[in-house]
Amino acid sequence: MRIGYDRKEGNAMHLFTADFLRHVGIALFTACGAPADEAAVVAEELVEASLMGIDSHGVIRYIWYTEEAIVGRIKPGAPIEVVKQSANTAVVDFHGNFGPVGARYMADLACDKAREADIACIISKHAHHVGRLGSCVQRLAERGMIGLAVVNSSKIGHNVVPWGGRAGRLATNPLAYAVPTAHHPVILDMSTSMIAEGKIRVLLHQGKDVPPGCILDADGRPATDPRLFYGPPRGAILPFGSELGYKGFGLALLVEILGGALAGERISDEGGAYINGLNLIAINPEAFCGTARLLELMEEMTAYITDTPPADGFAEVVMPGAYDFRTKERRMREGIPVPEETWKQIVEAGNRVGLTLEIQ
Amino acid sequence: MRIGYDRKEGNAMHLFTADFLRHVGIALFTACGAPADEAAVVAEELVEASLMGIDSHGVIRYIWYTEEAIVGRIKPGAPIEVVKQSANTAVVDFHGNFGPVGARYMADLACDKAREADIACIISKHAHHVGRLGSCVQRLAERGMIGLAVVNSSKIGHNVVPWGGRAGRLATNPLAYAVPTAHHPVILDMSTSMIAEGKIRVLLHQGKDVPPGCILDADGRPATDPRLFYGPPRGAILPFGSELGYKGFGLALLVEILGGALAGERISDEGGAYINGLNLIAINPEAFCGTARLLELMEEMTAYITDTPPADGFAEVVMPGAYDFRTKERRMREGIPVPEETWKQIVEAGNRVGLTLEIQ
Repeated sequence: MRIGYDRKEGNAMHLFTADFLRHVGIALFTACGAPADEAAVVAEELVEASLMGIDSHGVIRYIWYTEEAIVGRIKPGAPIEVVKQSANTAVVDFHGNFGPVGARYMADLACDKAREADIACIISKHAHHVGRLGSCVQRLAERGMIGLAVVNSSKIGHNVVPWGGRAGRLATNPLAYAVPTAHHPVILDMSTSMIAEGKIRVLLHQGKDVPPGCILDADGRPATDPRLFYGPPRGAILPFGSELGYKGFGLALLVEILGGALAGERISDEGGAYINGLNLIAINPEAFCGTARLLELMEEMTAYITDTPPADGFAEVVMPGAYDFRTKERRMREGIPVPEETWKQIVEAGNRVGLTLEIQ
Repeated sequence: MRIGYDRKEGNAMHLFTADFLRHVGIALFTACGAPADEAAVVAEELVEASLMGIDSHGVIRYIWYTEEAIVGRIKPGAPIEVVKQSANTAVVDFHGNFGPVGARYMADLACDKAREADIACIISKHAHHVGRLGSCVQRLAERGMIGLAVVNSSKIGHNVVPWGGRAGRLATNPLAYAVPTAHHPVILDMSTSMIAEGKIRVLLHQGKDVPPGCILDADGRPATDPRLFYGPPRGAILPFGSELGYKGFGLALLVEILGGALAGERISDEGGAYINGLNLIAINPEAFCGTARLLELMEEMTAYITDTPPADGFAEVVMPGAYDFRTKERRMREGIPVPEETWKQIVEAGNRVGLTLEIQ
């Protein structure tokens, strides 16, 4: 199921089919103790992220998810339980099951409630890592709903400074939305910080500098050397917005409030294995202009926006998410690139749960 | 009702009491044909913005609102009509009445629906300028709800380029949220562009440059001279986020979709006098962790955030909106500064509707 192999110095890449990687994921998570249908959901979600080019949330997570299941921080097969609900709202306890399993359950519940009752707001409890946030809202949009989502992180992720501060008090707190169109949904999935911690780590390994304006050293001074972020003592990440960073801070705080406080969680709790707090809102266009009219208006909006003459250095103007769907088309055709080192670690993770993974 | 008068070169300022300015506004809008209660709402909203230091949305708007009413673009006393609704949603037609009258109606309706049915989403039709967006969500938070709001603008305000473009296709499209606390609500009210058009105009009049990274000339080149923005031909404003401006663009588009398309409005419509499209979401904490618990958690969050050691150049870390409430306290005590020229134009606007306004 390998389409190709690309060996450049220090950058040896397998090119795997999505199907092959799905089978690998299902084998791994089943071996971790997940029921077959739940293993399939996790594998499908991670492969989808890889297909769309969001590699940080793709099959590289096979390794970490497996490790977390081995040490019991992920609890495969734990019940996804609605612990409180009304016609339009619900609180869903993941009980530590794989995050993408609970996130998909929440998206489907939000969709059902919004279909019956126009708008829904669903919030998680005891969620491990929920995966690509854009996936939840994409699922809603593909079912005709406008989707809004935020996800906070427990204190261990508090690397981002509040505006005017020099120490981390918030996580990179992403927010996402998706809107149905006649083609692919419009999708924005963005962190509310200047850079993700994962990207700083990549630059550290490459011996490269972080772009200016993204990180502070442990004394709160602007820095570009990634080693100054990791310390110890640990530095910090700036909120999104540069000189207007109070906006990014304000958005990060909204994510914390909707994802954490509204679920009854304290901001300063260590959180343990419960890494994420997900809040998902679904809005049914039928309650407003109607779905058919919305699709028509989104078509016109897409034309109006993409018709903008491009600035120097840009070939075109696209709607949010368009590049991700193009990457998916290309990777469906050409394969998903997986670094040799990542594949090696996936195989090792498999060994630890009694699996022998081979490229067939 | 004047507290003081401050004459500095080119900057002569009255210091008026809020009460005096409210009386002026009520007199003006009543003279425009507004019923007394609606005139009072508009005056109260604009004075409140001035008190909080958001002068661009404060009593300076007495002039423009009066002019708009004189030429019939604002229709004082027009019915605020619910044209479609369910337990959780509504479409409210302002029929061209003063925007703040309709916006307050929407906030109260959202609050009522969320109290009964946990979450509500209300959207406007045919709204003139709705005023300070933060006001709607503040009203919700003061009544125990988490409030989210966005407001788009008709094509005449399309000065903001999509990411990678060189021509305006979106307005400065603000978004706002507010969350109840035991004291003042947390409030964020932010545009999704690098700068507001009104601020560029102020800099033009002062003969000053716009900060780098905010505007483009008509050829799409970075500019700092405000004359290059106004042209003709007209330049453009960049989306919020500098080198990460795709995020600001994505947020601006969400505002356009929720405020415009969802109400059935075409993005490229000229709009005429219908300047704004408001979308307001109210979330009742009782459906989730409960109001008492939320207030407790917001207290703890405020302590955790404001306890951050400040960065160089900052005296303290504050929650969003805190400075606005401090400005309000100061202006309640010291008076609201109104430039001599603004007062002169308010008096002239009064003359045009048959009023003689005098400082008593």
